[in-house]
Amino acid sequence: MVINKIRIAVDAMGGDHAPESQVLGAIQAARERFDKIEVILVGDENKIKEIIKSQSCSLENLLVVNASEVVTMDDSPSDAFKVKPGSSLTVGLKLQLDDKADAFISAGNTGAVLSASTLMLGRIKGVSRPTIGSLFPTDAGRTMMFDVGATVDCRPNHLLEFAQMGSIYMNYIFDIDKPRVGLLSVGEEKSKGNDLTLEAYKLLETSGLNFVGNVEGRDVLRGKVEVIVCDGFIGNIILKFAESVLDVLKSKFRQYADKGIRNKIKVAMAYGTLKNVIKDFDYEEYGGVPLLGVNGVSIIGHGKSTPLAMKNMIIRAQETVSRGVNEKIEAAIKK
Amino acid sequence: MVINKIRIAVDAMGGDHAPESQVLGAIQAARERFDKIEVILVGDENKIKEIIKSQSCSLENLLVVNASEVVTMDDSPSDAFKVKPGSSLTVGLKLQLDDKADAFISAGNTGAVLSASTLMLGRIKGVSRPTIGSLFPTDAGRTMMFDVGATVDCRPNHLLEFAQMGSIYMNYIFDIDKPRVGLLSVGEEKSKGNDLTLEAYKLLETSGLNFVGNVEGRDVLRGKVEVIVCDGFIGNIILKFAESVLDVLKSKFRQYADKGIRNKIKVAMAYGTLKNVIKDFDYEEYGGVPLLGVNGVSIIGHGKSTPLAMKNMIIRAQETVSRGVNEKIEAAIKK
Repeated sequence: MVINKIRIAVDAMGGDHAPESQVLGAIQAARERFDKIEVILVGDENKIKEIIKSQSCSLENLLVVNASEVVTMDDSPSDAFKVKPGSSLTVGLKLQLDDKADAFISAGNTGAVLSASTLMLGRIKGVSRPTIGSLFPTDAGRTMMFDVGATVDCRPNHLLEFAQMGSIYMNYIFDIDKPRVGLLSVGEEKSKGNDLTLEAYKLLETSGLNFVGNVEGRDVLRGKVEVIVCDGFIGNIILKFAESVLDVLKSKFRQYADKGIRNKIKVAMAYGTLKNVIKDFDYEEYGGVPLLGVNGVSIIGHGKSTPLAMKNMIIRAQETVSRGVNEKIEAAIKK
Repeated sequence: MVINKIRIAVDAMGGDHAPESQVLGAIQAARERFDKIEVILVGDENKIKEIIKSQSCSLENLLVVNASEVVTMDDSPSDAFKVKPGSSLTVGLKLQLDDKADAFISAGNTGAVLSASTLMLGRIKGVSRPTIGSLFPTDAGRTMMFDVGATVDCRPNHLLEFAQMGSIYMNYIFDIDKPRVGLLSVGEEKSKGNDLTLEAYKLLETSGLNFVGNVEGRDVLRGKVEVIVCDGFIGNIILKFAESVLDVLKSKFRQYADKGIRNKIKVAMAYGTLKNVIKDFDYEEYGGVPLLGVNGVSIIGHGKSTPLAMKNMIIRAQETVSRGVNEKIEAAIKK
């Protein structure tokens, strides 16, 4: 019996450490899941093959598709994929349109990946706006926030759709039965919020989802819910703020250490402990952020993605396809 | 020559440690600034006088005005001041209307203080919406975010007014010449944002303020600007998120310590260092958050306010009056 492998296109040129991290991560994934996936590295063929060769690697489920252009951080997010039709981004996404791949992952220019994915793949039938989810590690499990930047101006029904898509994702990817959904707002009471959330509250209440009401900024890291919905403008600002907190702490530690040798020793000791304590906050290990609502699979990684992060993104992409997340979204929205 | 003292009404009953912290802070302020301020403690006369007596304190610039009711955290923010007309909140604010006080400070129910101040004091001529500012300690100075909860649904001109009021506050209270103003958004480019910020950008550009463009979530703690403007919905969520981060870190430290005696020792050592490192993040020392745009002076403190925090709030109130912040706001808005 031949089981069709899930085909995952990897943007080998996107990311701060591309193509090394990308290729190494792809090799790991292809090796670990030899029976289940086929990894298609998209980018500069020579460079990619050189790295594969350096790893003495010969895997028949690891393919290379050449792409001569590279989308960089300097390219305009909105039209990079058009301006550079030969880029690993455009070529990699097009594989899904041509039914040569089932999913695409990239750690490149986030805005460009987002625009290209949305415009090239189109939307799942019935979905008004796509959404990106980002995982926040919490005291009590995992919370994913939708949206963190795909749709900045939202109407109430967009937040409802984010809640539906987010619930399906948490259910089928993280095996959480009936994920609790919270609406990000400025107070717990139903009467607290802005025009958008007050209306969205009413839709969520009668949605059939496991909606538990409003959650506040202080609840994001506390694991009160598995899905937090908000417009992409707020979500993006909170995500970037959260990511900056650890950097600021590190900088504060350095400043303190610079004040003398005793401080330096204290910081050296404390820092090791801090690192252990906050390793749950390591955004790299979670397999990227999914773009939901597009008619295909696209997962966006952090620019700093390590080989491990890339491998995890590939596995996440496989699960998204094999567990039929998009089919479930289409069915849920239809209701 | 008689210099009129600035009269500051203090809500003695508002706060987690009321009236002790409130009265002790008032005594400190009255003592330190004997020549310049008169402190009016508003609340349960007997309890207040008992605490004053226990401090063997007899200051002629420390007065008591009785108020028999107390607004608690269970009272509805929007109408607590009406439902409890005899409360320290209502009586304390009314002193400004009767020209018996120049300012009011409270560490009580934030929403109730906000509503009461806005509705009882009214707005400065020309101001459309009031705003609350919250200070974020940064790597490179001080940044204040406006708005953090007074006005959740904003129009572009509201953000312009917040920028004007915030600039005046940072200029006259923190002595920062031409404070840099940033508009909180999802990208640095002018073209990035939501409908609200794209319009507000245009107004800020031609405002005559020291507007430096958009700032992102990651910039909030980096001190790139002194004034950050955003709608009160986002500002409130970010503020509460920021406040929760340290709590979450503490909880993570505890969990790590619970895993064994070696961890416990490591955490004990690291924790002392962490405390030193993050003491700039101590929101208590900054003298409360000002409510700007109301026709009077109202400063809102953290529920946990210590005597030191209360003292700092009183001094902040004195400066707000003596430096004519409201007059400067009125003049700026008129332009």
